[in-house]
Amino acid sequence: MKPLILITNDDSYEARGIRTLIEVARSFGDVVVMAPMYNASGYSHSFTAMRPLRVRELHQEPGCSIYACDGTPVDCIKLAHEHYCPRQPELVLSGINHGSNASINVLYSGTMGAVVEASVLGMQAIGFSTIDHSPETDFTAAVPFVHRIIGEVLRNGLPNLVSLNVNFPVPANGIIKGMRVCRQASARWLDSYEKRMDPQGRPYYWITGRFECDDCSPDTDQWALQNDYVSIVPTTPDFTDFKALQQMARRFDG
Amino acid sequence: MKPLILITNDDSYEARGIRTLIEVARSFGDVVVMAPMYNASGYSHSFTAMRPLRVRELHQEPGCSIYACDGTPVDCIKLAHEHYCPRQPELVLSGINHGSNASINVLYSGTMGAVVEASVLGMQAIGFSTIDHSPETDFTAAVPFVHRIIGEVLRNGLPNLVSLNVNFPVPANGIIKGMRVCRQASARWLDSYEKRMDPQGRPYYWITGRFECDDCSPDTDQWALQNDYVSIVPTTPDFTDFKALQQMARRFDG
Repeated sequence: MKPLILITNDDSYEARGIRTLIEVARSFGDVVVMAPMYNASGYSHSFTAMRPLRVRELHQEPGCSIYACDGTPVDCIKLAHEHYCPRQPELVLSGINHGSNASINVLYSGTMGAVVEASVLGMQAIGFSTIDHSPETDFTAAVPFVHRIIGEVLRNGLPNLVSLNVNFPVPANGIIKGMRVCRQASARWLDSYEKRMDPQGRPYYWITGRFECDDCSPDTDQWALQNDYVSIVPTTPDFTDFKALQQMARRFDG
Repeated sequence: MKPLILITNDDSYEARGIRTLIEVARSFGDVVVMAPMYNASGYSHSFTAMRPLRVRELHQEPGCSIYACDGTPVDCIKLAHEHYCPRQPELVLSGINHGSNASINVLYSGTMGAVVEASVLGMQAIGFSTIDHSPETDFTAAVPFVHRIIGEVLRNGLPNLVSLNVNFPVPANGIIKGMRVCRQASARWLDSYEKRMDPQGRPYYWITGRFECDDCSPDTDQWALQNDYVSIVPTTPDFTDFKALQQMARRFDG
């Protein structure tokens, strides 16, 4: 039997990135797509507990079912896994996100929230993103790497609870140099809220921000992307800081 | 000058847990509270990009300002840090959450989303939660430990980018045995969606779930809580799986 691949994203089912990912995935097996109805960027690992979820069937043909859900990317994975997959998926894919999920962006990412959730549920999972956030992104240079990474994971698997955070560069000459397995660079968003007044004179705030990274050694995802390599970060759902764990035992134990 | 302590939560400004935390914090310094207007449980590290934020001033006296924001706990930290803190906070506190954020719950937690965000922004931060999710929780046994942990962090600090995920047990005899610095237990929520029909015959899904943990060795937070200890997990915003990083380089590099 062909492998079953479950697909989601956070840009909604209409995005070009998920269309590209569906095409590539179909060359490997059957696909079930459950994507957010609306843009769910910045939804991180959030799920919907306070209201029920709705699902719309968008497309149905042998080997390819496409649904949209009015929840978060994590909701999409949880609900599709239980109710919309005819068998256990061999692989979960998320993306291709329009915008970087490298470095600290992984924290806010709905694309990667879905991927980490899939790994916790015991499935192998890969998130794909490109640093170009235009809705018109051209994925031509990225597609051969999407093929190679999916093929490699289907053949040889991933360690238990480990998922992949894959980001694509946008080289000036259009040529991606290769792939690098790397660590997440330490960085932050310096946010600035723009305060405006509504017509009734009441204030409201729009978020704006500037990405600041001072950790660009050659073992980081930021270095890889800046040097025209695909970055691949093995990602864990364990937030424990093991170095601090050693240092801190004596301060609080007892 | 007294230390400034910034406080948020995810159960909203009306919750008993945040009222308790504000009381304790006031014995250490001045406080600014920016809490969600509505229950924001399960919001994880999400932030609001697609609409502007509103803020309501709830209370103002020397040394204590309380605001509510219609965004997520992460929004509360970002916005308060820029617009509502008269000086850089020495410490950020979140909680006390009504419900466990130990083990895998940290992934979904708005309480801990705010804490991790504060650490990324360069502030020292602690999240407090109790495993009792009743809105009427009695915090009497927890309060002395909240005091001790805040005091210890104000005196000796935390390593760069490390925050604390603190959870309180609910001992049958009311007596907490002590504190344990530990790692996050590996676990999962086995979700089950209850399918119902609306009056028009259209389906909708309610999430329900059962927590399953098979990783209860004495170095885990789950063990600590089950044995009536406070669990303290040093938490990192770096999702890199360093063990997998070593193993996988050869599979993808090039």
